[in-house]
Amino acid sequence: MNLLDDIPAHADREIFTDVLLRERVRIERIVSTGQSTPADQPHRQRHDEWVLLLAGLAGLRVEGEGERNLRPGDHVLIPAHRAHWVTYTANEPTIWLAIHFA
Amino acid sequence: MNLLDDIPAHADREIFTDVLLRERVRIERIVSTGQSTPADQPHRQRHDEWVLLLAGLAGLRVEGEGERNLRPGDHVLIPAHRAHWVTYTANEPTIWLAIHFA
Repeated sequence: MNLLDDIPAHADREIFTDVLLRERVRIERIVSTGQSTPADQPHRQRHDEWVLLLAGLAGLRVEGEGERNLRPGDHVLIPAHRAHWVTYTANEPTIWLAIHFA
Repeated sequence: MNLLDDIPAHADREIFTDVLLRERVRIERIVSTGQSTPADQPHRQRHDEWVLLLAGLAGLRVEGEGERNLRPGDHVLIPAHRAHWVTYTANEPTIWLAIHFA
């Protein structure tokens, strides 16, 4: 699978696809088409997560770190248990690579 | 650092930059500008390595698996100890994301 192929122009929800599963690392592709995180429902994960924007545009707010506008090639380490929000994504498909450190 | 920024148009050698160092995982950016692996000097690493092409074009030959032409979004898992060769890279900068599983 090419990570930039077979991308729907629009979808009701974000699309999550596992790319590689290892004992302590999971590599995932996330496709967003305009979705964002509700202000009162932040994401939090039990493990550190590193994200890299592969295509599109997005805003990412991490508790205690403010908000960043991301373009392809930008990457962020989101520490475990830290609230974070995708504040916007482009209407064109926005493709993330996420590496989860279990 | 944006992984697609500050890329020299040409360089004598490949450029290796650590992006994230974890206890058992290392994320690295590799920039190639036309380099390839000599046929008699294959790469082999002690750990599994996952590579994703972010920009440019490249050929990758892995012992026992033949050669693949890679374009952005293509990814390959290179098992530990397996001989492999970058058979070509575009003269334009070719940018790899490599994840080393220690």
